[in-house]
Amino acid sequence: MDKVKVAINGYGTIGKRVADAVSLQDDMEIIGVSKTRPNFEAKLASKRGFSLYVPEDRIPAFEEAELEVAGTIEDMCREADVVVDATPGGIGVQYKELYERSGCKAIWQGGEKHDVAGFSFNALSNYDGALGRKFVRVVSCNTTALCRLLYLLDKEYGVKKVRAVLMRRGADPGDSKSGPINAIIPNPITLPSHHGPDVKTVLPHINITTLAAKLSTTLMHMHTLNVELSSPPASDDVRDMLSKEPRIFLATSDLKSTAELVEFARDADRPRYDIWENIVWSDSITVEDGELYLFMAVHQEAIVIPENVDAIRAMFELSDKEGSMKKTNESMGIGKLG
Amino acid sequence: MDKVKVAINGYGTIGKRVADAVSLQDDMEIIGVSKTRPNFEAKLASKRGFSLYVPEDRIPAFEEAELEVAGTIEDMCREADVVVDATPGGIGVQYKELYERSGCKAIWQGGEKHDVAGFSFNALSNYDGALGRKFVRVVSCNTTALCRLLYLLDKEYGVKKVRAVLMRRGADPGDSKSGPINAIIPNPITLPSHHGPDVKTVLPHINITTLAAKLSTTLMHMHTLNVELSSPPASDDVRDMLSKEPRIFLATSDLKSTAELVEFARDADRPRYDIWENIVWSDSITVEDGELYLFMAVHQEAIVIPENVDAIRAMFELSDKEGSMKKTNESMGIGKLG
Repeated sequence: MDKVKVAINGYGTIGKRVADAVSLQDDMEIIGVSKTRPNFEAKLASKRGFSLYVPEDRIPAFEEAELEVAGTIEDMCREADVVVDATPGGIGVQYKELYERSGCKAIWQGGEKHDVAGFSFNALSNYDGALGRKFVRVVSCNTTALCRLLYLLDKEYGVKKVRAVLMRRGADPGDSKSGPINAIIPNPITLPSHHGPDVKTVLPHINITTLAAKLSTTLMHMHTLNVELSSPPASDDVRDMLSKEPRIFLATSDLKSTAELVEFARDADRPRYDIWENIVWSDSITVEDGELYLFMAVHQEAIVIPENVDAIRAMFELSDKEGSMKKTNESMGIGKLG
Repeated sequence: MDKVKVAINGYGTIGKRVADAVSLQDDMEIIGVSKTRPNFEAKLASKRGFSLYVPEDRIPAFEEAELEVAGTIEDMCREADVVVDATPGGIGVQYKELYERSGCKAIWQGGEKHDVAGFSFNALSNYDGALGRKFVRVVSCNTTALCRLLYLLDKEYGVKKVRAVLMRRGADPGDSKSGPINAIIPNPITLPSHHGPDVKTVLPHINITTLAAKLSTTLMHMHTLNVELSSPPASDDVRDMLSKEPRIFLATSDLKSTAELVEFARDADRPRYDIWENIVWSDSITVEDGELYLFMAVHQEAIVIPENVDAIRAMFELSDKEGSMKKTNESMGIGKLG
């Protein structure tokens, strides 16, 4: 069978990572990526051998920057079997009509609303629901982390109620324009945050309330979880159960903070120090009075990348859930952080 | 009746604020403050007219800095009716023997363990328990904020269970040596944090679990609260009830973060921009499924100051709870932030 032809619309934080991850697979290939400005990331795309597609009126700017242009974004969509839309949140929906007209499938990211695709995806939680679909939305980083964890907890012990507090990074490491520099922002002040409802787009039966705050840090998000369980296990049972899932990494306590976690990933030679796994601090896992507590860190730039790869596989029915996740994990090195 | 003679051991972040607050009262006076180094705060004490007491071997250093020394710390304790110990956490306990030998009463801060005094104090929660006592410990900033809020909620609605997440400032604004600069530190990783047990030193019957993280910010702490109530009220009832307590301030949502709160306090001409009140975001108050949620900010440098003043009044039986809190509030301007 021919490889699935994948295009990336928006070669930024998520797009460039999905391009690299797809390139590692033997059943799909990148046929091009789009960029609107000839910046350092456009040069990276070119250097990595990805054909550059740009809006028609930007072609001169790219040529001036000595970047070869393969065609317009419309051209790219016509050639692709599937477009991974990694444009900024709220922009992706504007491309829906183009994707429909071009006859390609499309995957949006969590910055778009559920309705854009009508199906929100997390590989562990609902891979089968994406089989053969034309449009899929991969949920955001925080929702991805929550879905992975809650799916596993629910399957094993039954989840009665979840109270999660999300401490969010204020900006990505490569973003010098956003804040806060020195503040804690309850965000939103009115409850709940959108993350709880977003988890329900994937796992509709989970009773979850989330509160979130934006912080003066760039490295990772951190969650505190409180989960009421129907059949509460011992803390060690939870550790054992989670340790079997490659997309969850149990961290030892010498990894004291998000800073040590990132240093650990750099030492592990991860590309861009990407951490694709949920990081759960093993010593934080505590079951008390029927409720599980834990601390979990989430690398906002990286965690959704394997989900995009699996979504492609489901949409083209290239594999079942276990087969796809295993293939993605092995090709990328997921589960081999320690 | 003569004014109560108050000495401050440790004229730092807390000590200098307690000295100013005591100076505003008509039933107590500062007879001296201690300092171990002739730094800018020692000069401030001198400028504000507080007699400086120093360790015997440091007298030459202070004289070299042209700071007049009134005597040793031992001298200060002999002259005082009560010493407010505002030395760094863990150091205060080492002075207990001196206080006992000097025949003065003593108040420690929350950096010391409960056992140092055998009684942990929060004005709203247990003023009467401090009446006539020789030794009292004023609980830390976070515990003070939690006690004020939980005492009121428990009295009105009955508190069944509290799950609080504390996002702690990494360093005070005037501290250039501490971190983190860019990280989220679950602290401690093992649960619970000490804050829950510390609340129980004041309110022993409250069922509370706390998790805490240290953040890259200096301005304030922020808590997320989840409180199961025996008789759940409407959200507006909670607003009405809290708005009646001067030591709690309900913030509007244009005060978007700890940064805006501090700017607001600066505009209000608060000394050192001190915020003595718990800040509860009004719009965050949500009662759902029998559980109250809210966001609360805590100014770590300021919130315990009125409690120290009230503790002195209780220990010398100068007033009952309502009288003392009213006197402290009015002299300092507490409850007049908006």
